[in-house]
Amino acid sequence: MTAAASDPTVGEASEGTILRRILSRFPPSSAAVGPGDDAAVLDLAGGPVVATVDTLVHGPDFRLAWSSGFDLGWKSAAVNLADIAAMGARPVALLVALAMPEDTRLSFVEALADGLRAACDRLAPGCAVEGGDLTVSDTLTMAVTALGTLSGPPIRRSGASAGDVVALAGAAGEAARGLHLLFERFRDADGTPVPVATDDLSAAERHALAAQLRPEPPIALGPVAARAGATAMMDVSDGLLLDATRLAEASGVTLDLARDALGPDADTALAGGEDHALLATFPVGGVPAGFRVIGRVTPRGGDPVLVDGAPYGGRGGWDPYQDWDSARG
Amino acid sequence: MTAAASDPTVGEASEGTILRRILSRFPPSSAAVGPGDDAAVLDLAGGPVVATVDTLVHGPDFRLAWSSGFDLGWKSAAVNLADIAAMGARPVALLVALAMPEDTRLSFVEALADGLRAACDRLAPGCAVEGGDLTVSDTLTMAVTALGTLSGPPIRRSGASAGDVVALAGAAGEAARGLHLLFERFRDADGTPVPVATDDLSAAERHALAAQLRPEPPIALGPVAARAGATAMMDVSDGLLLDATRLAEASGVTLDLARDALGPDADTALAGGEDHALLATFPVGGVPAGFRVIGRVTPRGGDPVLVDGAPYGGRGGWDPYQDWDSARG
Repeated sequence: MTAAASDPTVGEASEGTILRRILSRFPPSSAAVGPGDDAAVLDLAGGPVVATVDTLVHGPDFRLAWSSGFDLGWKSAAVNLADIAAMGARPVALLVALAMPEDTRLSFVEALADGLRAACDRLAPGCAVEGGDLTVSDTLTMAVTALGTLSGPPIRRSGASAGDVVALAGAAGEAARGLHLLFERFRDADGTPVPVATDDLSAAERHALAAQLRPEPPIALGPVAARAGATAMMDVSDGLLLDATRLAEASGVTLDLARDALGPDADTALAGGEDHALLATFPVGGVPAGFRVIGRVTPRGGDPVLVDGAPYGGRGGWDPYQDWDSARG
Repeated sequence: MTAAASDPTVGEASEGTILRRILSRFPPSSAAVGPGDDAAVLDLAGGPVVATVDTLVHGPDFRLAWSSGFDLGWKSAAVNLADIAAMGARPVALLVALAMPEDTRLSFVEALADGLRAACDRLAPGCAVEGGDLTVSDTLTMAVTALGTLSGPPIRRSGASAGDVVALAGAAGEAARGLHLLFERFRDADGTPVPVATDDLSAAERHALAAQLRPEPPIALGPVAARAGATAMMDVSDGLLLDATRLAEASGVTLDLARDALGPDADTALAGGEDHALLATFPVGGVPAGFRVIGRVTPRGGDPVLVDGAPYGGRGGWDPYQDWDSARG
């Protein structure tokens, strides 16, 4: 048996074969109806349903030279779990729409399934892949939908009040440092991504790389924040400054952040996206364990966000249609 | 003001601008939390939640020479609504993940939003787009997640029993005839798709084309079938023969279809995909209005599907990884 025979491409295998390989990586579904029918059926015990979708596209969102199938599965789960957590909800199910070139190896698809499962097991135990879709595309694309349940009201972006404290759970700037490292150290002379060799990296660099490729947002702290009385919450996907601005605009307040609370590299913490940390506001004295105070909420002034009481002059976050330069990576 | 200034590309506009243009096409959300936060929050009145996702990819699933933005929005909604209906459920919300090349015009995005809304209004009143995601991709891709509610048990593929009748609601073979027409009549000498001119088409041909580009699956009949006591149901996306085989395999029965009941072109009805008709089985005497009887369920024999009591020798359905030939279209 040749290697290609034992590890066919998705163009050589039937849809049924691909599906069986994927589903065999997952535990048996505990949904009322799991994968295999027209749709999944989830018994959510009567509470409201929280739903979100996020897409990872080869090119702008990841490079196969840098991300393994496992990394990609992990990250596509993690970023969606974070959106559910940011509403104060507990993730219960993922639906995975996977569009793949015909020459994709089944072993890659299996690694991707393993990454999805591992991220659920680690970050949101009880959440599992309950449905999905396979299709052919020239561009490897994963659109993951996450569903969750609430045990109280959802925590919106719009509830912050003057007098609240601003708090953060999770990394700030780590994923951006990892991305910078990939661009600076793992491209060839033409700028083409090359595989990552971690041997020459410091522990801090490896940590930053892991934060970029396999982020670990603090999913369990979403419901914790809700129970603690968070007044507003969102996940930091596009950079702390930009996302704090969104929360401030939605709430009609100003967030005054303390540079000292943002770590040794506050500028990267403010600008760097993809950490999927939880940014929340709490009444004074109500910040739960796992969150650190990074500022305070004031009545709305001229700027939605201040740093140490002054407007911030640095770069501020990520817009996929403005910031993506395909020549860069 | 130039045309390009009034109709910028998504590469020229900010994510916020694109989103505002899209959301202005939709009615105000009636969800507990609609578009604009980390996730949507849906109050589903306590029943189980039905969830599905399906992806349309430029190339294998549609061609921009043939499909307008409106068509694409319509079809991406319709195919997902059909999966919800096929569980016996009522669709309540869509999440739309849209990955677009930078040179996509905003007017195209707006037409796509209009098509999503029109399909919901026409096929599933009360269902609306409640969330989504925008990202950059070289390949225009739409992954639509649909969520629905059940007022009784879900109708699975596995419940058909010998003695039941087989019934169908919706078109059979129409969408395939439309696709055939596109391939035969609307490509240039090199095989490249060219825009569709309907002037020279017969009424039947226009009907087939509409069935391919803007399918109208009988969404409301899904809950009707459930209330009528359907024992099994699924939507016919990959051709009647292949999907009937799946239902027969899941139920451990044989479906014996009557050729006469499949219309004047039974072979196209059996092989042709993308109609998203509802295939269901009912106890004798229980077939509700809107469904037509096309066969009967017998104890499992040597073949999962028979036509007029004999194995069917024709071509049978669509597998995206086996059947897509990029050279064809």
